[in-house]
Amino acid sequence: MATLIVPDNVSPSQDAEVLRKACEGWGTDEKAIISILGHRNAEQRKQIRLAYHQLYQEDLVKRLESELNGDFEKAVYRWILEPADRDAVLANAAIKKGETDAKVLIEISCIRSPEELLAVRRAYQHRYKRSLEEDVASHLSGDLRKLLVGLVSAYRYDGEEINTRIGNSEAEILHHAIKDKAFNSDEVIRILTTRSKPQLNAIFNRYREEHATSITKNLLGDDAHPNDFQKALHTTVRSLTDPHKYFAKVVRDGIKKLGTDEDSLTRVIVTRAEKDLRDIKDLYYKKNSVPLGQVVAKETSGDYKKFLLTLLGEED
Amino acid sequence: MATLIVPDNVSPSQDAEVLRKACEGWGTDEKAIISILGHRNAEQRKQIRLAYHQLYQEDLVKRLESELNGDFEKAVYRWILEPADRDAVLANAAIKKGETDAKVLIEISCIRSPEELLAVRRAYQHRYKRSLEEDVASHLSGDLRKLLVGLVSAYRYDGEEINTRIGNSEAEILHHAIKDKAFNSDEVIRILTTRSKPQLNAIFNRYREEHATSITKNLLGDDAHPNDFQKALHTTVRSLTDPHKYFAKVVRDGIKKLGTDEDSLTRVIVTRAEKDLRDIKDLYYKKNSVPLGQVVAKETSGDYKKFLLTLLGEED
Repeated sequence: MATLIVPDNVSPSQDAEVLRKACEGWGTDEKAIISILGHRNAEQRKQIRLAYHQLYQEDLVKRLESELNGDFEKAVYRWILEPADRDAVLANAAIKKGETDAKVLIEISCIRSPEELLAVRRAYQHRYKRSLEEDVASHLSGDLRKLLVGLVSAYRYDGEEINTRIGNSEAEILHHAIKDKAFNSDEVIRILTTRSKPQLNAIFNRYREEHATSITKNLLGDDAHPNDFQKALHTTVRSLTDPHKYFAKVVRDGIKKLGTDEDSLTRVIVTRAEKDLRDIKDLYYKKNSVPLGQVVAKETSGDYKKFLLTLLGEED
Repeated sequence: MATLIVPDNVSPSQDAEVLRKACEGWGTDEKAIISILGHRNAEQRKQIRLAYHQLYQEDLVKRLESELNGDFEKAVYRWILEPADRDAVLANAAIKKGETDAKVLIEISCIRSPEELLAVRRAYQHRYKRSLEEDVASHLSGDLRKLLVGLVSAYRYDGEEINTRIGNSEAEILHHAIKDKAFNSDEVIRILTTRSKPQLNAIFNRYREEHATSITKNLLGDDAHPNDFQKALHTTVRSLTDPHKYFAKVVRDGIKKLGTDEDSLTRVIVTRAEKDLRDIKDLYYKKNSVPLGQVVAKETSGDYKKFLLTLLGEED
């Protein structure tokens, strides 16, 4: 369930007018911007951009970028984009950071639906004049490249049919690879990048039944320091099987960090507010015994804080 | 240019009636079937199938399958399907044959437009309840798998922008790989599976300028017997850069074979008749000094021959 609260009757041109006023004159009325954009869904935000352009011959996104700054600007910018275009922007930023930000690419490839991922690839081409997989392939190398190119290029089967025989045999393939510490074997990458989500669930369930432990545990191994590729596999499996739990953990890790990882916090809240942020909040509370809104309020400040809380459905 | 000849006014329900009559009673009127289906484009054939189903509560494709046989049946069956669905059927048949029929998969991945390839992947899922890349990955192995999974999963940038710097540096990467006989290097596969067609043309042109010989020649090496993977790379480059020449060669090779390779002949004629079969015919004549229609007439017979010649725009 979503956390975004949208009023019943909204008018794109009225919204555009309010935003224009908020940007005009001395200073910027951030409160007004939050009260509008923090309560509009993707389609409505799109209509506002169109209406704004028609009324003022100006790109609302650019105007907001010039009026706002810091984490607040970044959050508003990411929020106002259409979801597929936003993912393209997130993916491109992650690619530029190289090996360190693989999790964003994994998230986008594994948590979006197959059709949504195609839309991201289309938006990426439109924006950057190259393909997503092309940029991933030319910026990364080695095993991580193999995994990520496979993940971003996937168009997984989206139906429910599964094949138990394949499930059993591929659970064994994974087991042997993990036992031999052959994490980077072509077969591991093949299975994780091509099988459908229900089929992968069947494989991982079989693995748990046969080996009395989950594959996610075994992927990190007994090492105190799993390598980056093992971590990427781990993120892949978690994104494919339990996105809510995965996101709750991303937020938790982001907040635990010294100084808070605003990029992660913004990303989870902005990308999930109109999807399943309520489920993520519930799970966060269950795991940490403290409400996510309370933590966000404590760790952030100013308009950025107000905006995140609005998207979390928790205004003052 | 196409070779298919389509009359101005056609009525799907009248066509359906003629086809019904052709199938009813003692024997089948193959001539009538050819005269209708051999002169209808993809959209019209789809309308005929719909009209036929509405009029007779029967699937026209199944009915034709039960009425016809041999190469003629196969050709009509492949022709009547929607192009993306037909490609899904061709791809599936190729996957089942394993390493031996890589060229069909390469053809579909490299010659169709990026959006057409997506449509094939969608049709494949619809028909087989698995993804195309999933089946390619689980039926093939080794280097050929790496190449083909990359090719079928690609959603190449479809614009004209190219980057000369990348073109130059990647021509060098290919040159070194070929010189070292490292045909299966990850970099070779990365370049061929992710770069856009205009970018690849720039790379291959640079290669030719710098090394005074074409990459297609060098890919086969000095070996009298290039291995299957080298042949697959060769087919990939030719499909990406010059489909007409590639298809003219496929037809030529198919005819040269003892007993004629009907599958290849049917495939080229059926998949190109409403696209660019005229260009392929012209090139065939230029290269072999004998008209393609004449060769087809000599090497095939009966209704199969009549049907192919009709699609070639060369009825008696």
